[in-house]
Amino acid sequence: MFVIITYDVNEKRVGKVCKKLKEYLTWTQNSVFEGEITKTQFLKCRKAVESIIDPMQDSLYYYIIENPRHLKKELHGHEKGDMDIFF
Amino acid sequence: MFVIITYDVNEKRVGKVCKKLKEYLTWTQNSVFEGEITKTQFLKCRKAVESIIDPMQDSLYYYIIENPRHLKKELHGHEKGDMDIFF
Repeated sequence: MFVIITYDVNEKRVGKVCKKLKEYLTWTQNSVFEGEITKTQFLKCRKAVESIIDPMQDSLYYYIIENPRHLKKELHGHEKGDMDIFF
Repeated sequence: MFVIITYDVNEKRVGKVCKKLKEYLTWTQNSVFEGEITKTQFLKCRKAVESIIDPMQDSLYYYIIENPRHLKKELHGHEKGDMDIFF
């Protein structure tokens, strides 16, 4: 499956969230991670990241496309995708 | 089609970009817009927003799912989706 995860997390927790998501997916820009992932790995990822956030303040959106062929991805402009600026 | 647009735009231009995207799609959180849109409207939206950004500095990611049934969307935590904080 292909998954896009976007997050809006308090800055106190954002570093931890990014670090965890990075274990499973690829950072694209700002608060967006994406990538192909197995169902098992995705459930593990969700569980881990949901245990970090405060659901009363923070939010995570999951966009799940079972078959990656059903997704078309296009970039306009400058590609970042270099997480080193954060870590 | 269903479209997710994420952006990383210099703060000088970000207000204009949000305003334009809001004409076509729904804001979910941070730098993410999404929604069902016709191909014609999507092309119009792209053209408009690409004329605002500086492709050397800014970036726009388009995730396009032709058939919205191929996308599953889930939220964990607190739903925002209220653009008024920006305008």
